[in-house]
Amino acid sequence: MSDRLDARAPERSEPRERVQDALVEITALLRRHRLVEGLIQEQQGGAPGGAPAPSAVAARIRTELEDKLAGLHPADIAWILETLPLDERLYIWNLVKADRDGEILVEASDAVRESLISSMDTEELVAAAEALPTDEIAALAPDLPQEVMDDVFQGLSVEDREELRAAMSFDEDMVGALMDFDDVQVRSDVTLEVVLRYLRRFDELPSQTDQLFVVDRHETLLGVLPLNRIIVSEPETLVADVMQPPPVKLLQHEKAEMAASAFERYDLVSAPVVDTNGKLVGRVTVDEVLDFVRRRGEEEMLAHGGLREEEDVFASVWKSFRNRWAWLAINLVTAFIASRVIGAFEGSIQRLVALAALMPIVAGIGGNSGNQTITMIVRAAALGQVTQEKSRQLIRKELTVALINGLIWGGVMGAVATILYDRVSLGLVMVLAMTLNLLLAALMGVLIPLTMLKVGRDPAVGSSVMITAVTDSGGFFIFLGLATLLLV
Amino acid sequence: MSDRLDARAPERSEPRERVQDALVEITALLRRHRLVEGLIQEQQGGAPGGAPAPSAVAARIRTELEDKLAGLHPADIAWILETLPLDERLYIWNLVKADRDGEILVEASDAVRESLISSMDTEELVAAAEALPTDEIAALAPDLPQEVMDDVFQGLSVEDREELRAAMSFDEDMVGALMDFDDVQVRSDVTLEVVLRYLRRFDELPSQTDQLFVVDRHETLLGVLPLNRIIVSEPETLVADVMQPPPVKLLQHEKAEMAASAFERYDLVSAPVVDTNGKLVGRVTVDEVLDFVRRRGEEEMLAHGGLREEEDVFASVWKSFRNRWAWLAINLVTAFIASRVIGAFEGSIQRLVALAALMPIVAGIGGNSGNQTITMIVRAAALGQVTQEKSRQLIRKELTVALINGLIWGGVMGAVATILYDRVSLGLVMVLAMTLNLLLAALMGVLIPLTMLKVGRDPAVGSSVMITAVTDSGGFFIFLGLATLLLV
Repeated sequence: MSDRLDARAPERSEPRERVQDALVEITALLRRHRLVEGLIQEQQGGAPGGAPAPSAVAARIRTELEDKLAGLHPADIAWILETLPLDERLYIWNLVKADRDGEILVEASDAVRESLISSMDTEELVAAAEALPTDEIAALAPDLPQEVMDDVFQGLSVEDREELRAAMSFDEDMVGALMDFDDVQVRSDVTLEVVLRYLRRFDELPSQTDQLFVVDRHETLLGVLPLNRIIVSEPETLVADVMQPPPVKLLQHEKAEMAASAFERYDLVSAPVVDTNGKLVGRVTVDEVLDFVRRRGEEEMLAHGGLREEEDVFASVWKSFRNRWAWLAINLVTAFIASRVIGAFEGSIQRLVALAALMPIVAGIGGNSGNQTITMIVRAAALGQVTQEKSRQLIRKELTVALINGLIWGGVMGAVATILYDRVSLGLVMVLAMTLNLLLAALMGVLIPLTMLKVGRDPAVGSSVMITAVTDSGGFFIFLGLATLLLV
Repeated sequence: MSDRLDARAPERSEPRERVQDALVEITALLRRHRLVEGLIQEQQGGAPGGAPAPSAVAARIRTELEDKLAGLHPADIAWILETLPLDERLYIWNLVKADRDGEILVEASDAVRESLISSMDTEELVAAAEALPTDEIAALAPDLPQEVMDDVFQGLSVEDREELRAAMSFDEDMVGALMDFDDVQVRSDVTLEVVLRYLRRFDELPSQTDQLFVVDRHETLLGVLPLNRIIVSEPETLVADVMQPPPVKLLQHEKAEMAASAFERYDLVSAPVVDTNGKLVGRVTVDEVLDFVRRRGEEEMLAHGGLREEEDVFASVWKSFRNRWAWLAINLVTAFIASRVIGAFEGSIQRLVALAALMPIVAGIGGNSGNQTITMIVRAAALGQVTQEKSRQLIRKELTVALINGLIWGGVMGAVATILYDRVSLGLVMVLAMTLNLLLAALMGVLIPLTMLKVGRDPAVGSSVMITAVTDSGGFFIFLGLATLLLV
């Protein structure tokens, strides 16, 4: 992760180096361009003596930038745009050849894509979208204004329109959203020779084509024909004799997560997507799966950190505020509840002020331990290893671990409290309270995610806030309650 | 994520269904087997009347289980083993055909792999390892006893030994660790016809072969020859005329993360790995990259939750304790420091006990807000969008967001505190303390990850604990300090 800032790295892959270099050069050109622009504004009338006119220099820099950009992969341009602050980003964006707009938009992150789209007019957006295959138009669609989509629809063939409508009908987390329509279909009753002749009519096969799909006249999927097999088999062989049953058939409405684990488990490069009647409707390729897995990991990280959506580091203050306020508000509510629990014991704290200093320790260890339990269960649930039947076994185990932790860490802190405040009973209350709060954390750490699974929600989202709320308020209540009963 | 427990899902992909069904059947067979075993132990002498002898039934169940397992993909068996509790897991493991042991071990998760390996003797382990290609032996190596590895080395050819030694010399997060040696090499001065004849000598090309690598006699990489291009070109064409420059050349010692982003950005299926002289040493394939990306996401999630390593839900209490204690100990230390900060203000709390109830709110919002900043920066750093030059700009922005949040949420809580305790000055201290702690959180939320990047550490690990420690102790100090100055 730190490699980009690590000046010691002695070796770099070529493409990355190329992109890094390109970024450095582009930034330098932008800086020169700004200087020259300043000159132009200063001396509006004519250039001095022999130096070239600033406007001519500006034009040359512009051309140089255009050339640089022309040599870069759309994904690299998207990365460079993401790395530049807004004004420079839009300046570069205007220099990119219009026929590459669509590809770059598809590659850009959500936050940056939004800023690029809002700088374009309807006509430009329609042109950008129309240059894309239907599955990629569908990926852009949520960010495009309705009138743009209307125009795009108008411009498509009937078949493309149907594909686009199909692709747009799926949620982001469904197989249909990962699907493309670049599946190459062949019949089973022809020879490989015929297949090869057919394939040679393509200038190039669609990317990530590792297999052809064998269908009957109703487009029902019969099998797959890996390119590998075509190459190692004799040309006169019939397709029917070398085709294989597809290791995986995906359905459009399945969870994309399921497709991802099939790709991972069976090391696939592409997989057919069929409808409920077994008719081939498209394919999913591993590049889309890789993007999906990465994106999902990032979303989990963002959700865990309390960010609702991707926030680009140059996002405006206002956008950042909107992205973050909900999480802060929720946490403020749970903190307020915990505060009221403490408020109920103000009398005890006044009489024994050591309680105020010790209570955050009890609450804190419960929160940490509860989050460990939840992390373990959320991960196991994602792997399909947690079921309701196992919940009792899990609870028993977690309670045992909590008991051990409580006795050990509670014992340590109890001893410390006894020494600090010279009062054995306070130490004992500390041991008891820490143990009880850890047991509460263990119980809720199992029950919260399992309940969320049962009601069909994703336990990765929200479990952490809930357990912290329980162990904070619970920890204060247990510790202050015990102290009130036994000490005050 | 919840799909496995979701009984409403109307459609399931075939392979997953197959695995789920297999698991259900295997579990049922195991249960019957246990019943029968019980019967055998009860009536040691002879079976009653006409019923078949329990031992015969047991043998039949055993065969049935073996047949079931024989029909499953190694990755599916690994998943089933992960899902079973230890005793049943080992019983099933013993039934798996010995020649598949290696493949299944490679597919299993770390925690489960360990439990399987510890049930095998040296001979079995050597046999399992020897059945694998060298890159996969290298992946197993850290979990194998030294004497097993010694034996495996003995059994390998000189060339394989060198490959294994090379593969074992890389850290998990280097390109070398993702590399395999199944690259198919061709020369540039032959025709595609010759290449095809050469390829037909393979029964099957190595999996994930989407391109051949064109090398000279010193094995220097000259270009790549996509299978696609072989198929769409005329057989008499020379390799030199259709080969392409490799879009990416990876180096063995690069960060795997860099390879992953190249695969993602350029939609690769395989990429050549070269040494510093440009000699082809192997290739990386997308299935390894997909595993790497998934694993990395999981490790981040575990690290975030305070688990040091993967913990299987059936891990023993002792193992769970070992996995979790370090995190709890660290958090206990930071909680103790915060507790001493409070201890320093016990006098003030005694005089104005409302402070005890309000102080966790100030600390809490700082922690949450600081974690949001860190999440955003860690993510941007992973994408290479954060550099030291931008740190001032980032700090300024985060401080502005913090100021707004402080005034709004501080204002809300200040008003609530004023009403609850009927004291305007307390409310004002609340506003001031929350704003200051949010500013502290923003500043440290930028500086902590940037400093970790600067000293070459991964900011995803540990930043969160550090920020919480700062905002807890800092929050208590700011709030209680201000209250002591202004109120008490």
